[in-house]
Amino acid sequence: MKNFISTSEWSKEELQDILDYSKDLKDNKFQETLKNKSIALLFFNPSMRTRTSFEIGIQELGGYAVVLHPGKDAWPIEFKLNSVMDSESEEHIIEVAGVLSEYCDLIAIRAFPKFINLDEDLSDNVINSFSKYASVPVVNMETITHPCQELAHILTLQEQLGDLSGKDYLLTWTYHPKPLNTAVANSSIMIASKFGMNVKLLCPSDDYILHSNYTSQAESNCKANGTSFTVTHDIEEGYSGANVVYAKSWGSLNYYGNPEPEKLIRDQYKHFIVDENKISMTDNAIFSHCLPLRRNIKATDAVMDAKYCVAVQEAGNRMHVQKSLLTTLLKDK
Amino acid sequence: MKNFISTSEWSKEELQDILDYSKDLKDNKFQETLKNKSIALLFFNPSMRTRTSFEIGIQELGGYAVVLHPGKDAWPIEFKLNSVMDSESEEHIIEVAGVLSEYCDLIAIRAFPKFINLDEDLSDNVINSFSKYASVPVVNMETITHPCQELAHILTLQEQLGDLSGKDYLLTWTYHPKPLNTAVANSSIMIASKFGMNVKLLCPSDDYILHSNYTSQAESNCKANGTSFTVTHDIEEGYSGANVVYAKSWGSLNYYGNPEPEKLIRDQYKHFIVDENKISMTDNAIFSHCLPLRRNIKATDAVMDAKYCVAVQEAGNRMHVQKSLLTTLLKDK
Amino acid sequence: MKNFISTSEWSKEELQDILDYSKDLKDNKFQETLKNKSIALLFFNPSMRTRTSFEIGIQELGGYAVVLHPGKDAWPIEFKLNSVMDSESEEHIIEVAGVLSEYCDLIAIRAFPKFINLDEDLSDNVINSFSKYASVPVVNMETITHPCQELAHILTLQEQLGDLSGKDYLLTWTYHPKPLNTAVANSSIMIASKFGMNVKLLCPSDDYILHSNYTSQAESNCKANGTSFTVTHDIEEGYSGANVVYAKSWGSLNYYGNPEPEKLIRDQYKHFIVDENKISMTDNAIFSHCLPLRRNIKATDAVMDAKYCVAVQEAGNRMHVQKSLLTTLLKDK
Repeated sequence: MKNFISTSEWSKEELQDILDYSKDLKDNKFQETLKNKSIALLFFNPSMRTRTSFEIGIQELGGYAVVLHPGKDAWPIEFKLNSVMDSESEEHIIEVAGVLSEYCDLIAIRAFPKFINLDEDLSDNVINSFSKYASVPVVNMETITHPCQELAHILTLQEQLGDLSGKDYLLTWTYHPKPLNTAVANSSIMIASKFGMNVKLLCPSDDYILHSNYTSQAESNCKANGTSFTVTHDIEEGYSGANVVYAKSWGSLNYYGNPEPEKLIRDQYKHFIVDENKISMTDNAIFSHCLPLRRNIKATDAVMDAKYCVAVQEAGNRMHVQKSLLTTLLKDK
Repeated sequence: MKNFISTSEWSKEELQDILDYSKDLKDNKFQETLKNKSIALLFFNPSMRTRTSFEIGIQELGGYAVVLHPGKDAWPIEFKLNSVMDSESEEHIIEVAGVLSEYCDLIAIRAFPKFINLDEDLSDNVINSFSKYASVPVVNMETITHPCQELAHILTLQEQLGDLSGKDYLLTWTYHPKPLNTAVANSSIMIASKFGMNVKLLCPSDDYILHSNYTSQAESNCKANGTSFTVTHDIEEGYSGANVVYAKSWGSLNYYGNPEPEKLIRDQYKHFIVDENKISMTDNAIFSHCLPLRRNIKATDAVMDAKYCVAVQEAGNRMHVQKSLLTTLLKDK
Repeated sequence: MKNFISTSEWSKEELQDILDYSKDLKDNKFQETLKNKSIALLFFNPSMRTRTSFEIGIQELGGYAVVLHPGKDAWPIEFKLNSVMDSESEEHIIEVAGVLSEYCDLIAIRAFPKFINLDEDLSDNVINSFSKYASVPVVNMETITHPCQELAHILTLQEQLGDLSGKDYLLTWTYHPKPLNTAVANSSIMIASKFGMNVKLLCPSDDYILHSNYTSQAESNCKANGTSFTVTHDIEEGYSGANVVYAKSWGSLNYYGNPEPEKLIRDQYKHFIVDENKISMTDNAIFSHCLPLRRNIKATDAVMDAKYCVAVQEAGNRMHVQKSLLTTLLKDK
């Protein structure tokens, strides 16, 4: 039994198989590969694209989806082992995962980092606990990485650019009024490096470098592929020559659980917005973003409305890659 | 591609076709007209009848429904063009409509007027923005009008009265402790006039006359049909001779965004409650209401429990007309 | 037409038929017994197991489920007859039940006791009002009893122990930081007694004896079966010789609507936690709980993780008994 928690546990070839089958499913949307399969979608955080694409995609393949919001329409869950549960949580992950495994063939989970305790967030405890106590496969719908977004991102880039080997990929930090989590950013550099691109990480200062858990994977992927991994704080250096620009905002890991001073620093970097001037420095790059995106904060209207912006196409691809992924995970059951 | 945002954009003949097919679907509930069609139901406001009838109706025709509550389980949406999105909204309607169009074959929207800015409410900006940026048909599940309710209303009246031409139709304002929106009231006079009835609007004072956007349509429909459109503040004059009594409460448009003085005025008119005495002034009228209805505030128990009350039948017809409507909108895709 | 509001309205033989068919459905999960049947699931309270097992189970039998949360995503409902509805409720149960009966073939309801007014809670007014005004069967998803849990509980005990006649059954009160409702406890003694077991109710003091509505049913069931019904406050006496230990926490009925003094009393009884020492007093009992369960408050980790703990299996059986129940209720429609 295989989970889909991080693409780091999957080889490039295995991921390419999922992507190739996605392309088939895009042409032949309605299949019965999930017939009589039930999938629980657990959301600890809001969702539009993820929920819609999973719910519809599962039904298009003949399966059943049930959507739960623990702590809202379902009971709050305890994740600590050996806990004396005298606080808010009404049941333990051991029972939750055990019971859902009785009802469902697969459990998908969205559980964002809480930005209070870095070690806890890095442990990715919610999804790893589900994986530990469930007897069915577990799929990541965004925790401290966002591997379904990675698949959609690469599928979109392959559709646009063909073979990605040796292409120049830029992940640029952008401003956002709130300190967002690093999931998509972590995912971006891991997957771009895995698929053979030269990866640049552009961020305003050392405060905004991603955690070494993820930069080290990107570095080692690049090393294995003979490509380069670069960090820069210089906008022109970042954009120069890029074939792909991917944007994401995130809060500084150096101010975990300490949002006020972080905000003062972050507010200096509003000029990292993706605009036409910056795109003009690239090698006719395509631009994308995982969405949701605040227009004229993260990227200008002109960039979002340009032909080279493939964010909506990428979001559309979420459904196809997820259908392929679920089929892959459940086909041998 | 056709939307269903207001019945004003549809001819009486086109609407009658939808109603006729509803009658077929009432006898043959289970069809495959929506097979492999996915429909997003977006609720910015609560719903019981609308959600249940859409969700079940779509499934009875072989389709898939996904229910979203933007701002609650999905991200809050920005509707202003060229906005610098530094406030609460996390994504722009351009992306939301674009992405949902990737996943779905149709988008249905409930977005009540906010009763703060009249011009903004009159612009019906939420649904019109979806219609502008989506590449799939858009259906109104109640905004500043409620056209699905109109269809159910007319189907019910035709079932009860046959041909509606020349029948006397009364829309009466009723009391409610809160200033409700005018959607169903606007819809009531537009559709009753379109289907050839003499229309009376009974309201307590000039403060409660509906907006001229809607009264002018009702007047022009009546003129085209050779029928009459009358506004009265006199209860006996309103009820006298009516074949149909439809009731609805709404807040005064003259006190938009200014609820306290409006409430003082509204509280004088509790006697507009629909009761047996008023119904006795009619020509054996049938009575209906769109529901939800506060008993003994908007109408008495005796009226609601009477045989001439067809509100539950009308609510039941919501499902049949909507199934017909969705089939109509999607059949050529 | 039959409802499933309390097992007291069903004979042991009728219930056994449902259980027997559950066993068939466990081996042959996918049937069409609910094909083209629509079922409304109304939740006035949170749910994980109940919602998931109903939603998936209905789909596995070819039916459609719609989930509503009145007062949250649907309108708040008035249950008092002849009420002047000038408060929070936007519509009356008469219309809600009438309209849902237009759309659905069955209505299932979760409406916990509110712990404010004992007589109101004992009247089970929410579900009984639905049953009175709906024209379709009504199913209890937990009100002041939890009959679906009863079915799953007995199925699990029969799977573990075979014929239950003459077995020794203990329901033990356990501590919980909040005053929970008595639904599962009431259900436990009613169903254990009906299926021929000697029933002991162990609770810390007379303050925690269940309401005579339910103890009297248990007593009369035991009398009819020639078994014993005992209440004890002595832990050793309670556990001694038990073949089954079922645990549940509940607030004292003597302090209804008066939580502060009740908490002071309840807080003295944390030692009622189910632990290995207590289980060792039994006759190799199996242990179960309806879940959710706070570990190390209601039962220790060691008990929950032991082989004799069948709580997850019982939760899994929820789906099978409910599929059987719904099929039974709808098969003659």
